[in-house]
Amino acid sequence: MAGNAKRLLFEIMEEDGRGLARGIDLFLLLLILFNVLVVLLESVAGLNEEYGEIFHRFENISVIVFSIEYLLRVWVCTERGEFAEGRAGRVRYAATPMALVDLAAILPFYLPLLFPFDARMLRLIRLVRLLRLLKVIRYSESLRIFTDVYRMKKSELAMVFLVILFLLVFASAIIYHVEQETQPVAFSSIPAAMWWGVATLTTVGYGDIYPITPLGKFFGAIIALLGIGLFALPAGILGSGFVGALRRKSSSKFYCPHCSEEITRK
Amino acid sequence: MAGNAKRLLFEIMEEDGRGLARGIDLFLLLLILFNVLVVLLESVAGLNEEYGEIFHRFENISVIVFSIEYLLRVWVCTERGEFAEGRAGRVRYAATPMALVDLAAILPFYLPLLFPFDARMLRLIRLVRLLRLLKVIRYSESLRIFTDVYRMKKSELAMVFLVILFLLVFASAIIYHVEQETQPVAFSSIPAAMWWGVATLTTVGYGDIYPITPLGKFFGAIIALLGIGLFALPAGILGSGFVGALRRKSSSKFYCPHCSEEITRK
Amino acid sequence: MAGNAKRLLFEIMEEDGRGLARGIDLFLLLLILFNVLVVLLESVAGLNEEYGEIFHRFENISVIVFSIEYLLRVWVCTERGEFAEGRAGRVRYAATPMALVDLAAILPFYLPLLFPFDARMLRLIRLVRLLRLLKVIRYSESLRIFTDVYRMKKSELAMVFLVILFLLVFASAIIYHVEQETQPVAFSSIPAAMWWGVATLTTVGYGDIYPITPLGKFFGAIIALLGIGLFALPAGILGSGFVGALRRKSSSKFYCPHCSEEITRK
Amino acid sequence: MAGNAKRLLFEIMEEDGRGLARGIDLFLLLLILFNVLVVLLESVAGLNEEYGEIFHRFENISVIVFSIEYLLRVWVCTERGEFAEGRAGRVRYAATPMALVDLAAILPFYLPLLFPFDARMLRLIRLVRLLRLLKVIRYSESLRIFTDVYRMKKSELAMVFLVILFLLVFASAIIYHVEQETQPVAFSSIPAAMWWGVATLTTVGYGDIYPITPLGKFFGAIIALLGIGLFALPAGILGSGFVGALRRKSSSKFYCPHCSEEITRK
Repeated sequence: MAGNAKRLLFEIMEEDGRGLARGIDLFLLLLILFNVLVVLLESVAGLNEEYGEIFHRFENISVIVFSIEYLLRVWVCTERGEFAEGRAGRVRYAATPMALVDLAAILPFYLPLLFPFDARMLRLIRLVRLLRLLKVIRYSESLRIFTDVYRMKKSELAMVFLVILFLLVFASAIIYHVEQETQPVAFSSIPAAMWWGVATLTTVGYGDIYPITPLGKFFGAIIALLGIGLFALPAGILGSGFVGALRRKSSSKFYCPHCSEEITRK
Repeated sequence: MAGNAKRLLFEIMEEDGRGLARGIDLFLLLLILFNVLVVLLESVAGLNEEYGEIFHRFENISVIVFSIEYLLRVWVCTERGEFAEGRAGRVRYAATPMALVDLAAILPFYLPLLFPFDARMLRLIRLVRLLRLLKVIRYSESLRIFTDVYRMKKSELAMVFLVILFLLVFASAIIYHVEQETQPVAFSSIPAAMWWGVATLTTVGYGDIYPITPLGKFFGAIIALLGIGLFALPAGILGSGFVGALRRKSSSKFYCPHCSEEITRK
Repeated sequence: MAGNAKRLLFEIMEEDGRGLARGIDLFLLLLILFNVLVVLLESVAGLNEEYGEIFHRFENISVIVFSIEYLLRVWVCTERGEFAEGRAGRVRYAATPMALVDLAAILPFYLPLLFPFDARMLRLIRLVRLLRLLKVIRYSESLRIFTDVYRMKKSELAMVFLVILFLLVFASAIIYHVEQETQPVAFSSIPAAMWWGVATLTTVGYGDIYPITPLGKFFGAIIALLGIGLFALPAGILGSGFVGALRRKSSSKFYCPHCSEEITRK
Repeated sequence: MAGNAKRLLFEIMEEDGRGLARGIDLFLLLLILFNVLVVLLESVAGLNEEYGEIFHRFENISVIVFSIEYLLRVWVCTERGEFAEGRAGRVRYAATPMALVDLAAILPFYLPLLFPFDARMLRLIRLVRLLRLLKVIRYSESLRIFTDVYRMKKSELAMVFLVILFLLVFASAIIYHVEQETQPVAFSSIPAAMWWGVATLTTVGYGDIYPITPLGKFFGAIIALLGIGLFALPAGILGSGFVGALRRKSSSKFYCPHCSEEITRK
């Protein structure tokens, strides 16, 4: 009996389905999004004063739902081949990224009940509730192509990180050296100049700090132009990655006209 | 007689043609662009005072032309196979996106005649006339490749939207938590911090709001650098999409020189 | 005799060469770059006062060199097959883009000698000298791949232009409507709002104008996020264009193992 | 004996290894990163006062380690085939980019001991220590694909540089001409306008300088929109470059199933 119920629940909760399974997916998805929305709105002083009570109740209900969801998932996980061996399987399931995300979604509620926290910590824990947004990953279908492309291009992307680091450190050191005397406050140290470096290389350019000496502007202009490459490099790498993923998918088998046998590619 | 005229009109208005058909296309295209220009210039107080009368007359003439165009298109649509069955076909034609755009282009003129609107609503309705710009889509040839690429890459682009949402929510929450005490007005709530988040992740960087504490700048820099990926991801996805569309177009059939038989690719 | 000299000059000036031909190319290239530099530096008041005399002499010498270059090119052009028929060929050569650029490079010097200009016009004509920079195109080798990609992707890039126009007009109209009451000066008209629209969609974000109402910030954020696509679309299109150009270059001929004859691709 | 030790050291230091070789790599990598961190933190006045002594000792130890590393590398380099011929080989090794980087990493320490420098020069030499970061290149694996792509696309990227130069010079000259009268200080010269040009074309947009006249805003908007191409061009070129590198790697040999002969592709 319990076995059948478990099997049924497993199919509803963990497999792509229709009807009830789909309805539950949609309900949980909306609950997640509303939870995130509530955390955002709660931080607005005016709204919290007026609707704080409602927000609080919604939070309580959500935690109950998410807790039930978590327990059920841990219960039914043994239906999947890889976690079949009872308790040990359950522990291994609980250590999967998605199960940890599910746990992180309910912990911010239970932790303050167990440990006494000060006000600042409590405020931080409220923000941790935003991790519930990660539960959405379960419902997104094309995550695999992203992780594929990332794995395929990992070393090139690490290289881009290195290029950014090089540019950032050298650019900031040069501008620091050039501008320090004229703007001793804004460019007081290399780390301070790095704030300018990031704003310039990423082309954000808040305008709170920028070179004013002719030499500083000259180097600043060159650095800003080099920043163009910072967008072009990862775009080019990811582009070739997605093209590669595309090519792998489209099977390109050739057949000989004589015997209709496949001509293999090595 | 009417049938012949309808056929002729259909060919002139709906099919790629030369001579008269091309001339009418160009005339309507220019009329659309001038209409948009007039809406833009009308909003400039000085110009409206001086040329308001001319703008008004131009608007009236345009609406007459667009109304005639709309009625003619609804009349001749039955010449196309899919809308051949008289009234029902006409209703279905009127529900196509392009026909709805044509209707939206003339409605802002007729609605205030039918219903009494207040001044604010009237001003809004004036802006709705800008939807006339959408009529240009009819004359653009390569829309299909865009919709093809979009359809091919829909799930990846949705994933990008999710990544943006994740980054935006978490980035804003972190900076809100770090800067709130030092800048209680600028970072008064998470939604306020999200305005900073959007300006930073999109690299717009107006400079009206930015972190000033060392820790805030540290996280802000990391978030700005992550923003680089926000441009690289869709650029890479669309790039591979256009490459895919390119490949599909170039027929890649192989023929053996001996028997002229096709070497099939599966 | 003159024929031989003409032939020799043609080979030196118009064909890729070594030794003397290469030396002359380099000399002209440097002269162009120094000319542009002089126009830039001349506009700096302090430098012009001190070195104005030198700048003036350099300008005179340059014009003499460029004039001789232009006359020689017009003289020797008949050595090329397409311009062989004497005077008519010379006129057709003079109408080629590169010959027009060469003419534009010397005209700013001769025009004021022929016609009396006022001070403002003279200042503008000084800037026209910057067109000399276009002469550099002659010495750049990979222009063809750019024009190829542009021709291949012309209609898609035109479509991008349309998308930008749509986004710009609609975004500016919305923000104008929302912010007009709160910021009647900054958002006084749709064209004024378009200045904000360009700064936001291109992610320049000077910070001289931005929405301050919650609704304006909400729409502004959405528009800024849509601006990401503005970079992704042309990057993707050009990427696929360069991939297409790459593929065309790499001849992909297949040979049958039986008879070693080429397997044609149709 | 010395030969064996040299061989062993060569394998540990210059070849990809495990165990001890890997441990030494990691130790040197961390030492480099800490060195860079120390240079950054040393420039913060508060930190330098408190931890200056520790920073100084760490610098001394690092230089000793890097000096030993450099001498050992020069000693063992003869184990590699290309530098086998004793002294001449060592000199040629010392002239390789990586050996020069290693030398540059220790020179800032020894130079002030040999030559008397003034305070400003000493401060600059401190920054030169940041070049130690370049030593990281030795440990990055996918540098080759970057240099491959760069070599493949060199002429196209040079063309992009030319396009940027064209846009920058012409854009700045136009805005200078238009805005000069209204903003005589900000747009005092073309080089001053080029500072605006770079900030706009790279979309940094600090907001310290921007057009305010209607005509200036009109041209400024067009220039900002053209700036979009500045990101799209290199992204597209690099994208096709990485796709090309990808294609080259995936060996595309075809074999006939009948005779196992290769179907050659030329």
